[in-house]
Amino acid sequence: MPVAEQAAPNAPVARPDAESRLDLDRSALLAMGHGRLRALAAEIRTMLVEQVCASGGHLGVNLGVVELSIALHRVFDSPRDPIVFDTGHQSYVHKILTGRAKEFGSLRRRHGLSGYPSRAESVHDWVENSHASTALSYAHGLAAGLGLHDHRAGRSVAAVIGDGAMTGGLAWEGLNNLAERPELPVVIVLNDNGRSYDPTIGGLARHLAGLRAGRRGPGADGPNVFEQLGLAYLGPVDGHDIPATEAALRKAREMRQVVVVHTVTDKGRGWAPAETDPADRMHGIGVLDPVTGRPHAPAGTSWTEVFGREMAELGAEFEDIVCLSGAMRGPVGLAPFAERFPERFFDVGIAEQQAVCTASGMAMAGSRPVVAVYATFLTRALDQVLMDVALHRMPVTFVLDRAGVTGPDGASHHGMWDLGFLAQIPGLRVAAPRDAGQLKALLREAVTGTGPCVIRFPKAAAGPGIARLKGIDGIDVLHHDEAGKRDVLLLACGPLAADAVEAARRLEARGVGVTVADPRWVLPVPEAALDLVRSHGSVVTVEDGCRVGGFGAALALACVDAGLPHRIRVLGLPREFIEHGSRGELLAAHGLDAPGIVRASLDALALARPAERTR
Amino acid sequence: MPVAEQAAPNAPVARPDAESRLDLDRSALLAMGHGRLRALAAEIRTMLVEQVCASGGHLGVNLGVVELSIALHRVFDSPRDPIVFDTGHQSYVHKILTGRAKEFGSLRRRHGLSGYPSRAESVHDWVENSHASTALSYAHGLAAGLGLHDHRAGRSVAAVIGDGAMTGGLAWEGLNNLAERPELPVVIVLNDNGRSYDPTIGGLARHLAGLRAGRRGPGADGPNVFEQLGLAYLGPVDGHDIPATEAALRKAREMRQVVVVHTVTDKGRGWAPAETDPADRMHGIGVLDPVTGRPHAPAGTSWTEVFGREMAELGAEFEDIVCLSGAMRGPVGLAPFAERFPERFFDVGIAEQQAVCTASGMAMAGSRPVVAVYATFLTRALDQVLMDVALHRMPVTFVLDRAGVTGPDGASHHGMWDLGFLAQIPGLRVAAPRDAGQLKALLREAVTGTGPCVIRFPKAAAGPGIARLKGIDGIDVLHHDEAGKRDVLLLACGPLAADAVEAARRLEARGVGVTVADPRWVLPVPEAALDLVRSHGSVVTVEDGCRVGGFGAALALACVDAGLPHRIRVLGLPREFIEHGSRGELLAAHGLDAPGIVRASLDALALARPAERTR
Repeated sequence: MPVAEQAAPNAPVARPDAESRLDLDRSALLAMGHGRLRALAAEIRTMLVEQVCASGGHLGVNLGVVELSIALHRVFDSPRDPIVFDTGHQSYVHKILTGRAKEFGSLRRRHGLSGYPSRAESVHDWVENSHASTALSYAHGLAAGLGLHDHRAGRSVAAVIGDGAMTGGLAWEGLNNLAERPELPVVIVLNDNGRSYDPTIGGLARHLAGLRAGRRGPGADGPNVFEQLGLAYLGPVDGHDIPATEAALRKAREMRQVVVVHTVTDKGRGWAPAETDPADRMHGIGVLDPVTGRPHAPAGTSWTEVFGREMAELGAEFEDIVCLSGAMRGPVGLAPFAERFPERFFDVGIAEQQAVCTASGMAMAGSRPVVAVYATFLTRALDQVLMDVALHRMPVTFVLDRAGVTGPDGASHHGMWDLGFLAQIPGLRVAAPRDAGQLKALLREAVTGTGPCVIRFPKAAAGPGIARLKGIDGIDVLHHDEAGKRDVLLLACGPLAADAVEAARRLEARGVGVTVADPRWVLPVPEAALDLVRSHGSVVTVEDGCRVGGFGAALALACVDAGLPHRIRVLGLPREFIEHGSRGELLAAHGLDAPGIVRASLDALALARPAERTR
Repeated sequence: MPVAEQAAPNAPVARPDAESRLDLDRSALLAMGHGRLRALAAEIRTMLVEQVCASGGHLGVNLGVVELSIALHRVFDSPRDPIVFDTGHQSYVHKILTGRAKEFGSLRRRHGLSGYPSRAESVHDWVENSHASTALSYAHGLAAGLGLHDHRAGRSVAAVIGDGAMTGGLAWEGLNNLAERPELPVVIVLNDNGRSYDPTIGGLARHLAGLRAGRRGPGADGPNVFEQLGLAYLGPVDGHDIPATEAALRKAREMRQVVVVHTVTDKGRGWAPAETDPADRMHGIGVLDPVTGRPHAPAGTSWTEVFGREMAELGAEFEDIVCLSGAMRGPVGLAPFAERFPERFFDVGIAEQQAVCTASGMAMAGSRPVVAVYATFLTRALDQVLMDVALHRMPVTFVLDRAGVTGPDGASHHGMWDLGFLAQIPGLRVAAPRDAGQLKALLREAVTGTGPCVIRFPKAAAGPGIARLKGIDGIDVLHHDEAGKRDVLLLACGPLAADAVEAARRLEARGVGVTVADPRWVLPVPEAALDLVRSHGSVVTVEDGCRVGGFGAALALACVDAGLPHRIRVLGLPREFIEHGSRGELLAAHGLDAPGIVRASLDALALARPAERTR
């Protein structure tokens, strides 16, 4: 389930007395008996449900690690012992236990608490991790860098990693490298809840299920996978049993070597709507009613939903279409397709490299693969997009959800890098639909095309349709000056076209003649865009992505190549990591709204020489 | 050992009669008895030594798969049964066995045979794979896409993957996914020679060594790692014993499911200089004497060697420097550092993601990590450079060897994408040294700096030093017109500065006033570069990388942002995959030499308005 964009302004907050009771330090935690710890777990769980239902965020996964986080902080002396959370969205309880209960009401709001670990927030957050499968590599680096093989310091590193994240290749690389240095005091806490968003797939998941059931291997006892790699293993242990979990962690910490502690937890534990959720146990949620677990009010139809429905339609029309997802069939909208065509849907685990490389193999075999992925996670597989898909000129379609400013998930989740990364990949075309109709049209062009294609859209509701006045070689003109004045050309990518049309109206009220065009296929820059540039005095490009290397930059280069002397203003996100906040707030802060486009246009006009303004 | 750039023009070629004897089809192969097959293997081995010593290329690894390749082609009906070679440099014997013996004399030459599989060359080459660890994912995609779970077709897919490539995360993702669909008829041929370039590291390597020695696990028998994941396993089998290997492959093919066939081979088998090579068994070689295995003549000092020596010096000076390599300590020049500071050197396996993420962890712990990697392989870890290093603002230095046109290794090995990929990463700076002295200076600036840095240099000899006339805010001016004429500014990145200086001399002979400047830190574009632009009429940028998104494109955007109306010519590689050939040939073909720079400068001048030319 997608995480909602914005907290309700009148969201309920937890009772202040509960927050202050939760504001405890480690010595207080160590002083508690087991009865008090159980009560603490219950209080934390109540607070999580209330607060995360109010703010949106990752609820199910944090409900699953309440007891585990308590046990971790009793056994490990954070921050002296670094605790690294893989896919940092499972760090809410850690935040509460390290002095941030009082600020929890600001979770995921602009200038409030981050939904992930944050080095700026706390010395207890070593790693601002949020892309999956990194924790073992960090733990290796931290332990080696801190010189912890010298055991006199007595420090340890704990790395908490889910079974889902273990399906990612980087986790394997980390495991293999930790096995090379088993003398490092690293405790790998395998948080096995059997799921990512979706139930975890593959051979490892089956093996872990066997271990949970007390079987060591198929048809025989013997060392399990971790032991075969040369690592010590403890467990499985019930991760909701604080004394048992604590005992296992303590034993592991005292072994002064790499140890896997296999803890078994329930995602969504203790909250009925999550425990009974058939989809993803309320992994990440929007603003919900804390009792029913239902949204307060329906939001508009999201881009994701439009894509998901159309994909199922295209699946019915083209039998050779296959769809791939990295353990996120729901969040990327592939549930309808997967339900209708289960044999043509592939969940590869949290394994974007596999998704892309396998898609290329499928295309070689004659299929038409569609890989649906969050824009920020495509970076994981960029080598495969370049070498395995583009070098082989395979007709694979990539659908990038959460492209552009994503909102409350912050710096690691804004999909603002894809245009810059994809611009130089030979033969690959990138489309940015401005409305639901265009998404359907462009998706059809992509899956029926002959080369690799990318379709990008944001995490938002798909707004009303924006009609075109005319088409010019694939470019849609959305607005032009009735009197034929050509002062400014606005080239707007994707849904920002709506803001550009609004900006055009405001500019015309000031006597400026404006053309608004939507290139539809934004990379490589279409030749027709240059023709439009030639007939205007100034140009403003508008894109929801990093302005370095994106559409505007590519247009600037094309103009330089063509010797065009035009004044160009390139609007986009700066070459900076952008913190969390609502999508609307952040776009406006970076001039990506109608007022910002008006300002940039007036700026471009002031730059333009008088002779050029009206030609 | 680095692969040499160019074949000796008078290189010996194999005897024509040997080539024609090797020009056989599969029915001829199937008709041979085992005595004849052994003789064939010997003939192929002789040809490989003669030809690859003459052309340079991957010798050791191909000598190790002669018998295995013969057995594969007897059991699998290529191309009906796709045979996918992981890290395609092990495909020479496959090429010989599929009708390309006669063309072997053109190996790795421009318009000659590729050193990797090539779909343009042969229907037997399904995958032009060369980055490691992809074969299992391709096999999954091919088998699923071809619908091979329907066993009536009787087809199979064979994926040949080394133990080294198994340390890469993508291989794990592939293995885990194949275990999810064990009904696919995929034979995983594990070519276990215990090495990549270097001996294979980690828990898996130890486990495979145990299996080779007949042990199933530590202290106990039981299922091995593959079996624990739910895959069938056959072996180990001696990969130089054709009947035994063939029998295992045939059995595996008949099982109609995913099976691992564990074959044990010797890298460099049958050629004494490789069998006794202590470094990497002559994995990839330059032009060598086929008897002694020594180079005919010493080449100039390479960039790699300059880096390697300086890195060891810096290691002595700064105790907190650590170095990381992805199984390539020799090829990236880290052998001197590793020898001198073994406890501060980390070979992570073919696992670039791990190298980068672990380096970030080490930096968090206070170390100064240096990750040395081929430019083309950094793409594998771009997500980690962005999210794990840059987002955390960690002072990790990336040293990109083989940046730019690499030469005979072709499209997958040109390091032409790094500038475009790195340009938008916040806080990351990229340097391109023009000569050995600059490499040392920039490396020192990088490892003593406070943020992430990249140093890039090509696969070539580091030419003579190029003195600067003066420095302007970090930019080195290498040449200017004595009379003060400022017609053209040449901004040249890295060693192409030498060509720019030569071009300047030629232009001045025609009366054009030229300034040549080396930005040293090329991304982000230094402010001082814009100041230089302001004082010149026209600008030509020169870089050894894709021109889309690189230095010239960034300069063009900066000029547009600053409202500078200058004529700019951006020289670089096109947005295309570039085939193999010598570095000199390919640079010249794309205008990246003195004549090309002269042409571009004259073109820029013609574009410039008369009023602008001499201001």
